[in-house]
Amino acid sequence: MTLFCCCCLAISSFGQQALGQRPRVSSPVVNADGTVTFNFYDPAAQQVSVRGDFEEIRSQNLPMTKQENGVWTVTTGPLAPELYSYSLSVDGQRFIDPANSYVNRDISTLSNIFIMSKGTDDKGHLYQVNNVPHGTLSRVWYDSPTLGQQRRMTVYLPPTYDGKKRFPVMYLLHGHGGDETAWGDLGRTSQIMDNLIAEGKAVPMIVVMPNGNPTCNAAPGWWHEGMYTPDGNAFNQRGAKASMEESFMDIVRFVDSHYKTIAKRQARAVTGLSMGGGHTFGISRLYPEVFDYYGLQSAAARMQRDDPKFEEQMARLFASKPKLYWIAIGKEDFLMQMNSQLRQYLDEKGYPYEYYENDGGHIWRNWRIYLTLFAQKIFK
Amino acid sequence: MTLFCCCCLAISSFGQQALGQRPRVSSPVVNADGTVTFNFYDPAAQQVSVRGDFEEIRSQNLPMTKQENGVWTVTTGPLAPELYSYSLSVDGQRFIDPANSYVNRDISTLSNIFIMSKGTDDKGHLYQVNNVPHGTLSRVWYDSPTLGQQRRMTVYLPPTYDGKKRFPVMYLLHGHGGDETAWGDLGRTSQIMDNLIAEGKAVPMIVVMPNGNPTCNAAPGWWHEGMYTPDGNAFNQRGAKASMEESFMDIVRFVDSHYKTIAKRQARAVTGLSMGGGHTFGISRLYPEVFDYYGLQSAAARMQRDDPKFEEQMARLFASKPKLYWIAIGKEDFLMQMNSQLRQYLDEKGYPYEYYENDGGHIWRNWRIYLTLFAQKIFK
Repeated sequence: MTLFCCCCLAISSFGQQALGQRPRVSSPVVNADGTVTFNFYDPAAQQVSVRGDFEEIRSQNLPMTKQENGVWTVTTGPLAPELYSYSLSVDGQRFIDPANSYVNRDISTLSNIFIMSKGTDDKGHLYQVNNVPHGTLSRVWYDSPTLGQQRRMTVYLPPTYDGKKRFPVMYLLHGHGGDETAWGDLGRTSQIMDNLIAEGKAVPMIVVMPNGNPTCNAAPGWWHEGMYTPDGNAFNQRGAKASMEESFMDIVRFVDSHYKTIAKRQARAVTGLSMGGGHTFGISRLYPEVFDYYGLQSAAARMQRDDPKFEEQMARLFASKPKLYWIAIGKEDFLMQMNSQLRQYLDEKGYPYEYYENDGGHIWRNWRIYLTLFAQKIFK
Repeated sequence: MTLFCCCCLAISSFGQQALGQRPRVSSPVVNADGTVTFNFYDPAAQQVSVRGDFEEIRSQNLPMTKQENGVWTVTTGPLAPELYSYSLSVDGQRFIDPANSYVNRDISTLSNIFIMSKGTDDKGHLYQVNNVPHGTLSRVWYDSPTLGQQRRMTVYLPPTYDGKKRFPVMYLLHGHGGDETAWGDLGRTSQIMDNLIAEGKAVPMIVVMPNGNPTCNAAPGWWHEGMYTPDGNAFNQRGAKASMEESFMDIVRFVDSHYKTIAKRQARAVTGLSMGGGHTFGISRLYPEVFDYYGLQSAAARMQRDDPKFEEQMARLFASKPKLYWIAIGKEDFLMQMNSQLRQYLDEKGYPYEYYENDGGHIWRNWRIYLTLFAQKIFK
């Protein structure tokens, strides 16, 4: 490989004085026919490709072709409306597309994102920021006496929140490796809620997204452990003073005392994905008098049938007649068997629930769909 | 260049199911002796370097050396306490360090960041998240009747904000190409304020960081123009219904009506960098009765001496005896001459001001220092 001298093109971005001169390559470009073109300038590279979740289940690798001007390019086939994630592979190494400053972090990995939308009634439109009233998104520190910690949560307040009118609350829980930023960033909660509320499809509500890792205070970089590399296993329940479920009422009490909530069972819902689905399952058994709507999304919902308390808790939960017990999972999800066992148990007992099954696996694409569906089912 | 097959190592990050197997390379590693080691795995690359703002004025390029295991590495000399930004250059192309998920966006460019701190009384410590009470950071939409828009601002509430006690307000304005996220991300406002307040060096205060571009509603990706590539020139004042300065009281009125503020002149400060310093200059002339503290940081403070109103406004401003008129700029700043002319004018007129000059140019490194200094001077 001939080393190409690009020093003259290097961008320095450390201040406004140092704005670079490098010619812009646009990437990605969403084309009118629903295809998407990626462009990347690297005259010296031998092989460049785009890896993205353009298909339902697996990530897809699209080899790029080098043009005479040193710009590598590839155009996808028509893409369905969706929020897509991708990265570049340059001579075998994974990089972020330097032309796209929109990224999401999943655990420790950054990926570029873009949205495909073809109209005003598809998923892409729902995940976009549209010209509608917007809610407020806050990173809030609260006291958890049970965990002996100050902890961080994300709070979405609906556009009509004015400090006077009271609103119902959805508690929205992340999965293993996630944190209080996951639902807002990867899950597009602000956009989904703004759009559903604007269209009259969801009731205006407060959405509370706590951190579900009881051995840390906040997302990586936002507490005093510094800028460590999250690996998804560092902050689980081992060594915690209490579990997420056991400490959960600290969150509810804080929210009811700091926001204009309707502090009643019929105005509280709890839902979560994967580990957060497991938390939802536990919370439903511990506090059936507190919540009226439950959503288990791709839930790590392990039944503890050898624990004598389990049957008693389940009986008490369903004797309380929750308005909704919702289980959602994708056909390819690795937790399908666990969820099938749970449904079989509920069927045997005659405990009523709603079930939603769709394509795909244990991925954010599905959790955005589940949030969208659940948000429309509650507080009505 | 031999194409090295790394397909087996590729990370797919599109969901928790797809966590990759690639062995981790840690980068950057802050060493006990105050040096920093960067590591990057790419057995097939010909030339790799780290480009960062490790020196005061210019960015520095540190060539990395390839080890037998395919990992490129370089260690800096001892670094002074600071928040540093860097990127990798791989065979001439600029990339983010894939091992570091901490990034800042400046206009459209992402750079990696890390913090060097050597004790509890240096800049690094001040910019870190320490084990102190934390304030709340919110992205808030407000109505601007003057601009005919819903607009987004960032609001920092101090740790002791409880909805009852009232607090003074600092309005903190970004520069050309920035938006309402700039001061929070690049400027480390939350961390600086949390730490100054915890140490008793600053009075607990609300900090309001509005968007200073009157022809857009919010930061890129957060309003209905979609995920465009910001270029720093798209959203200036041309075509706006009013200027930032003319519409500024919309912001003050919103803040006073939605937060527990001390709604008096002696409890209001306004400060900004570059274009935001220019806005501060204009605001000081338009509303001398509203603010008692002004901070012009690397300010684009152009005097309009051919405008008959200018002399009158300046006379009225200084007749109101503001408690602080503060001008801060670096020796290398390209706006030094403009600021010298302003100071010469103020001297001629006998208008009192404080002046702070330090090393360096028109860069965030300086604006973090200026915020730190200004925050300690106000409301005392």
